[in-house]
Amino acid sequence: MKFGGTSVANVERIRAVAQIVKREADAGRGVAVVVSAMAGETNRLVELCREIGQPAPALDARDLEYDAIVATGEQVTSGLLALTMQQMGYRARSWQGWQIPLKTDAAHGKARIREIPEDAIGEAIDSGEIAVVSGFQGVSPAQRIATLGRGGSDTSAVALAAAIGAATCDIYTDVDGVYTTDPRIMKQARRIPKISFEEMLEMASVGAKVLQTRSVELAMAYKTPLRVLSSFDPPDAPGPGTLICDEDDIVEQNIVSAVTPAMDEATISLLAVPDEPGRAAKIFTVLADANVNIDMIVQSPSREAGHANISFTMSEADIDRAVSVLKEQQKTIGFSALQEDRDVAKISVIGVGMKSHAGVASVMFKTLADRGINIQNISTSEIKISVLIESEYAELAVRALHQAYELDKPAGGKEAS
Amino acid sequence: MKFGGTSVANVERIRAVAQIVKREADAGRGVAVVVSAMAGETNRLVELCREIGQPAPALDARDLEYDAIVATGEQVTSGLLALTMQQMGYRARSWQGWQIPLKTDAAHGKARIREIPEDAIGEAIDSGEIAVVSGFQGVSPAQRIATLGRGGSDTSAVALAAAIGAATCDIYTDVDGVYTTDPRIMKQARRIPKISFEEMLEMASVGAKVLQTRSVELAMAYKTPLRVLSSFDPPDAPGPGTLICDEDDIVEQNIVSAVTPAMDEATISLLAVPDEPGRAAKIFTVLADANVNIDMIVQSPSREAGHANISFTMSEADIDRAVSVLKEQQKTIGFSALQEDRDVAKISVIGVGMKSHAGVASVMFKTLADRGINIQNISTSEIKISVLIESEYAELAVRALHQAYELDKPAGGKEAS
Repeated sequence: MKFGGTSVANVERIRAVAQIVKREADAGRGVAVVVSAMAGETNRLVELCREIGQPAPALDARDLEYDAIVATGEQVTSGLLALTMQQMGYRARSWQGWQIPLKTDAAHGKARIREIPEDAIGEAIDSGEIAVVSGFQGVSPAQRIATLGRGGSDTSAVALAAAIGAATCDIYTDVDGVYTTDPRIMKQARRIPKISFEEMLEMASVGAKVLQTRSVELAMAYKTPLRVLSSFDPPDAPGPGTLICDEDDIVEQNIVSAVTPAMDEATISLLAVPDEPGRAAKIFTVLADANVNIDMIVQSPSREAGHANISFTMSEADIDRAVSVLKEQQKTIGFSALQEDRDVAKISVIGVGMKSHAGVASVMFKTLADRGINIQNISTSEIKISVLIESEYAELAVRALHQAYELDKPAGGKEAS
Repeated sequence: MKFGGTSVANVERIRAVAQIVKREADAGRGVAVVVSAMAGETNRLVELCREIGQPAPALDARDLEYDAIVATGEQVTSGLLALTMQQMGYRARSWQGWQIPLKTDAAHGKARIREIPEDAIGEAIDSGEIAVVSGFQGVSPAQRIATLGRGGSDTSAVALAAAIGAATCDIYTDVDGVYTTDPRIMKQARRIPKISFEEMLEMASVGAKVLQTRSVELAMAYKTPLRVLSSFDPPDAPGPGTLICDEDDIVEQNIVSAVTPAMDEATISLLAVPDEPGRAAKIFTVLADANVNIDMIVQSPSREAGHANISFTMSEADIDRAVSVLKEQQKTIGFSALQEDRDVAKISVIGVGMKSHAGVASVMFKTLADRGINIQNISTSEIKISVLIESEYAELAVRALHQAYELDKPAGGKEAS
């Protein structure tokens, strides 16, 4: 079981979480509980680091002390939840990353898990003790505290579940499942009862916030079923949530499972880049070095002969950094001008059914064209189509696509119609 | 070097501490810095535990989770100070208790240090890296985080200084040294330039707040000189502070070094206890089990034949607990009534000179008698006389004794006069 920051925001919420843990323990299940820092706590600790003058880019990446400082947030929560379970008469203990030990590489601030020896914690759980684990943290080869980066507690939970051979990894959050689209945009959005790892991975990578990409990748690799559940449901009457599992375990399958909007996108266009080998490579090396993740890329002919315009999208949070490093390298790259556009949104349509059903793309393009929405950019995978459009049309596009793919109807609905 | 909570209360104070560390590092000295939690942080964490419902008596003694939670306070400070030193261009790193490892016993909440292997941290310091150590914490034989109890950061600092063979252990605090008495009571109180371990130990044990008894004991056992210094002095013009060292290293020595008041004392009197073997033992076993430290004990004849009245003093913080356990055992102990008195103060006169000079006690009793101050109770050691008096006379007694022993004059003054 994993509980995020809003689920453990204060002592009252921790008590509510304890009731959910109690339900599982009372049902005779061995339980490991991974917890995040209390909501707001990580920000408070990051702010202390910033006050010291730790420059922002280093914060997410390199610094060992930053890791030692922010990891205390989870340490406090795991201690408090273990204490609560003890008060309720259960055997429970907290486990810090170094105590398991959850071994990571040395990439501080975004460390990757290398190994979780399951003997010590597995034995404790088998003996009936509830293991309360600090998420987001591990220990590096040099025995320093290493944090796993954004969403790291989900990753901790999935990796631990795989290591101890858990039947499921239940991610408790402030929503009651994965939805066909953002319910704030489309009130007919439907909770998806079951979805495949592949689809969930695409959803996470195009911007669905409910789960982090790395945790889904890991669950898929180890075939550990994930459940997304609400920690705000009554402990004795939990909702069914969303099960994320192998595609083969899903009987009723829509062709399209979800329409996922990403509002915080941005585009940079470099004009009149000399059309020579190595220029594009130079651009994307510079951006990768600055830790900017690039998504859609389009190259189009420039008015200037022998030159091309290159556009690419990224998260809006990264555009200032991207612009700054590109301008520094303007001479080497050789572009004449740089244009930014922050008023763009990426709308993605996701479904494993696309593999076997043609026409998904044409429905998408026709639906958007009928509403007069211009597509600036397209990218696809085997089970996903993403389009970049103007921000102001984003909600209209989501509603139109949700309706076009009949996502308001239960799975199998489209097949039967 | 050790810095307490008020010395690292916020980021600005941590920067000021960094300047003091810089001064030592720039002078070519290898430096280990032990830090406490930022002022208020430990209380915040303890309050979270209390909200969970962890009962108060257990808080100081048994709970492993309590230790894991409160130890985060020091972890944050050590990370922030290491980060600050790095920002200033120094090599520095934080060390948590488990990383050194500072090995303790399993007495959580008041663990005692068993062993500090100096190889890893010693090598780092020898290489020129500044070691910033989280005070107050270690790791138990079961690899759990253990805290050392009140004043634990002083103890960490002294033990570490002894382990790595430090030339001195400098305790930075919010006062600029050890004084002949409390300067708030007697403005002629004088900073003591040098004082012996034995005297400092007596001062700490009778209630002087500047250093904890255990840290002085440890320094004495390992002959590690301690210095008490102010972290609020300008880094480039530090005050001389107080050196606590072997008696033999002090040339000019007053007969009496200090007059130490303890205002928060309380007395319990048990009336008409049967005067039989084992009754007193029963009383003090019950109190020891309840973690109540007893100081002065007086037994006097009761009006009832074959019975005695027994009075003893303790810290006012302990009296409620003491009364409660004694009343529970009233039948077994067999007293007829219990009287409490919270309006008492203990005034102690301390000096190694007492060993070789007679008349110290008679000066004390005469001085108090001249002011009409009644002595309720007396206890002595080879270098200390303590008296219990009514609280309202405490300040008068301190001033009178400070004057009588000529403590406002520099060391050696009395000898020469």
